[in-house]
Amino acid sequence: MRIAVIPGDGIGKEVVPAALPALTALCETFGLPLSYDVLDWGADTWLATGVGLPDGAVERLPRTYDAVLLGALGDPRIPDMAHGREILLGLRRGLDLYVNHRPVVLDSGVIDIYRENTQGLYAGVGGSVTRSGSVTVAIDESVHTRAAVEDFVRYCLRRLRDDGRRKVTLVHKSNAVPNTGRLWQDVFRRELTAFPELTGSEEYVDAFCYHLVRDPSPYEGVLVSSLFGDIISDIGAALMGGLGLAAGASVCPETHFALFEPVHGSAPDIAGKGIANPYATLMCLALMLDHFGHGAPADLLRTCVREAARGATATPDIGGHGTTDLFMDTVLTLLDHH
Amino acid sequence: MRIAVIPGDGIGKEVVPAALPALTALCETFGLPLSYDVLDWGADTWLATGVGLPDGAVERLPRTYDAVLLGALGDPRIPDMAHGREILLGLRRGLDLYVNHRPVVLDSGVIDIYRENTQGLYAGVGGSVTRSGSVTVAIDESVHTRAAVEDFVRYCLRRLRDDGRRKVTLVHKSNAVPNTGRLWQDVFRRELTAFPELTGSEEYVDAFCYHLVRDPSPYEGVLVSSLFGDIISDIGAALMGGLGLAAGASVCPETHFALFEPVHGSAPDIAGKGIANPYATLMCLALMLDHFGHGAPADLLRTCVREAARGATATPDIGGHGTTDLFMDTVLTLLDHH
Ligand SMILES: CC(C)[C@H](C(=O)O)[C@@H](O)C(=O)O
Ligand SMILES: CC(C)[C@H](C(=O)O)[C@@H](O)C(=O)O
Repeated sequence: MRIAVIPGDGIGKEVVPAALPALTALCETFGLPLSYDVLDWGADTWLATGVGLPDGAVERLPRTYDAVLLGALGDPRIPDMAHGREILLGLRRGLDLYVNHRPVVLDSGVIDIYRENTQGLYAGVGGSVTRSGSVTVAIDESVHTRAAVEDFVRYCLRRLRDDGRRKVTLVHKSNAVPNTGRLWQDVFRRELTAFPELTGSEEYVDAFCYHLVRDPSPYEGVLVSSLFGDIISDIGAALMGGLGLAAGASVCPETHFALFEPVHGSAPDIAGKGIANPYATLMCLALMLDHFGHGAPADLLRTCVREAARGATATPDIGGHGTTDLFMDTVLTLLDHH
Repeated sequence: MRIAVIPGDGIGKEVVPAALPALTALCETFGLPLSYDVLDWGADTWLATGVGLPDGAVERLPRTYDAVLLGALGDPRIPDMAHGREILLGLRRGLDLYVNHRPVVLDSGVIDIYRENTQGLYAGVGGSVTRSGSVTVAIDESVHTRAAVEDFVRYCLRRLRDDGRRKVTLVHKSNAVPNTGRLWQDVFRRELTAFPELTGSEEYVDAFCYHLVRDPSPYEGVLVSSLFGDIISDIGAALMGGLGLAAGASVCPETHFALFEPVHGSAPDIAGKGIANPYATLMCLALMLDHFGHGAPADLLRTCVREAARGATATPDIGGHGTTDLFMDTVLTLLDHH
């Protein structure tokens, strides 16, 4: 496992360095080879040099590394998260990381949200008409190719089946966004026929969000396009008990290259106070271990992190009165004792 | 008040006839002139004749009526709600009903969601590329003109100020859908300068949904484009205690023509059982009375409906064990006694 580590901005610069010792400890215990480099991409570099995603990075990264760990991007000094868009969306698109897996872990079970990551409104197609320096027409296009939707749907259905999931829900909005909705429905229905183990259902995104908030327990697997996936994974995080808990993996099924990132942002309001929650980053590390076939250390990490989160040294956002460091001490001690 | 009444499909055909006697009773008590015609638009007509929105209806309606009351559209026999799209989106677009007001009534206060209704992904711009009969590329475009966003934002800010609201939040996604996001931000910031009574803030739609689910109490006014507004108003309904409670008005500020419709759908699962909740339709009637300047009967209706909803004759979805008719009996008795 050769990892490019990008702490990024705000609390990313706290939770990533805090969480990494857990990974090194696990790799030592389990005898797994691990190497990583820390890259300084983020707001400071952008403001100093104007560079977000360095030239050629998209080509270089997969030659040197197997995966990226990204903390968070976003800085109050940079409008619209311009650097974050360049880096994060640049990596997702440039490296074909088209499957974004965001597990929502609830008492009632786990909902595996699979979000398409590179198409639809995230394809970056669009433009603005300006007159006398101000925009008169703004256009952003949701563009999907059948081939891309097919690859995505097939991969996700296979993962859901292999993980023993039984139900899968397609979230769309065919009644108002018809071209997109119909393509997704068509692909979903066709691909599903090859997976008799899975029972499929379809829901409009508004109704789905309504039901998710009211009672998430019936859902198991969810397939969703990029923009709706962004929204429903944040709702999922709210149901989990906070953005500090939600982890995600962006994967290219063909190259196996992957990027792991917490769902939370850079949280400028609590950055620098030493109280940011490394839970989501630790869960990203567990997803990373899983991804490379190391299920045992992944499960151990999850067990210890969950145990630590129930204690008093947990960070304030999840009801403890600990700091980032105190929480990590607990996690590392638990890892040591197991 | 000359009303075109479209019960529509499913529970629409139950809640609309059930709720109307409350309007007639109030109009008698307060001496307000009222007339209405019931139009049979909906799934049955579509299936029998192929007609959703009759030719010329968009021109005729505002000549004959002042407003539309719409129950619900949607039928399991019609994929993608094709008839509903033609009727509902046809009326919203054709009659320039570009302001969709959906109040979210919570114990902590009311959130006035103002959703743009005719632009963005609801403009109906897009298409599909097909090959050998199957779609290979699907495109739906989010298109906004500055003029339309300005008219919408200005009208909503004026209403919020006149209603004594103090805070207004713009919900957008400028970090991933940049052309749209930037136009909205630009217009919002400029227009806001003319409203010193209002404090503005801006949130990404994912973060907004997260915060809304965690704690809706800080929000007062919300301005949002069509697609995000669809989602957040359903989340709002979930927080209110159910889709059966959420009402909405779609208004053209220039002509004053308006369409009132519950946020809920046709609910085929409970249609025909006599247990559909007319609460949202009654709240639509209150919004209608407000719209025509009849604040006193509107408030009286709201008071009686809320009182009825707390009793045992409320419908099962809100914890009672009544039927649609029993609930309406309570409402009408309360109206009579006040
Ligand atoms: C930062 C932003 C572009 C990103 C997204 O919308 O995908 C974030 O919200 C996420 O969920 O990873
Ligand atoms: C029926 C559908 C097209 C409609 C919409 O998306 O606007 C509905 O969900 C609503 O919220 O009124």
